[in-house]
Amino acid sequence: MNFSIRMATQDDMAQVLDLIKELAVFEKEPDAVEVTVNDLRTNGFGEHPKFTCFVAEVDYKIEGIALVYGRFSTWKGNVLHLEDLIVSQKMRGSGLGTALLDEVVKYGNQLNVRRISWEVLDWNEPAIDFYIKKGADVKRDWDVVHLNEQGIKNYLSKL
Amino acid sequence: MNFSIRMATQDDMAQVLDLIKELAVFEKEPDAVEVTVNDLRTNGFGEHPKFTCFVAEVDYKIEGIALVYGRFSTWKGNVLHLEDLIVSQKMRGSGLGTALLDEVVKYGNQLNVRRISWEVLDWNEPAIDFYIKKGADVKRDWDVVHLNEQGIKNYLSKL
Repeated sequence: MNFSIRMATQDDMAQVLDLIKELAVFEKEPDAVEVTVNDLRTNGFGEHPKFTCFVAEVDYKIEGIALVYGRFSTWKGNVLHLEDLIVSQKMRGSGLGTALLDEVVKYGNQLNVRRISWEVLDWNEPAIDFYIKKGADVKRDWDVVHLNEQGIKNYLSKL
Repeated sequence: MNFSIRMATQDDMAQVLDLIKELAVFEKEPDAVEVTVNDLRTNGFGEHPKFTCFVAEVDYKIEGIALVYGRFSTWKGNVLHLEDLIVSQKMRGSGLGTALLDEVVKYGNQLNVRRISWEVLDWNEPAIDFYIKKGADVKRDWDVVHLNEQGIKNYLSKL
């Protein structure tokens, strides 16, 4: 199978959003995606982009994405965070995920970061096996905490 | 007890690093801190700061910090991440942690973010109870994944 990996452009964002939504369905949160194509176009490009996106293209269609941005670890300093690594359902197992992760690791190395981080659902065993095989450390004792929009409002109303 | 919360300055970074190291010991990773005072001074200030730090001061000594930066969620857009909320061991239970978290939530609200996120060790029950009481959602099914510096090198050597 022929595919190419390249940096995303603003014109790709509609297809990128389709994949983001597809993943949200897989992760059992179909209604969680509030981001719009315009949000992606505005925030990912221009003078101070808030993320960098790689796309995997097959026959001029985007079948996978990896979206990353910098974070600052108080232990390691500058690190790279992989917010999403998505391959369309029909292209799973075709090597696109590996090719995208390769690109992310090369990019992190270019940026000279001391760590690349991401998050995974603990029941997503195929993903976890894949990451471990790649040398990553799945920190099962670290949990993610979210205070959502309503939580922020409630919190402030009690101050 | 009298304390004040304010934005950190570059001159605070030595004391901030002391607290970062104290937390690493508590989290059973005493050797994990590679960041230097200079890293903090360089990255947290200037034209494009990579983080914002709040400090809690008691008698002119920094006894607590909250360090935050922006992230980009593919579901929510701009979100605020709380990288570290630290109160010195001797000042735990004195309200500093709450005051710092209050400041972070107010700051996130000012920035109009749709979420504030952070990470917690799943055995740190006092912290988890505190966060839940504040309305946060501890997502125990989401794990954190790290590919560290050596992992990046190993990964690239196999490409």
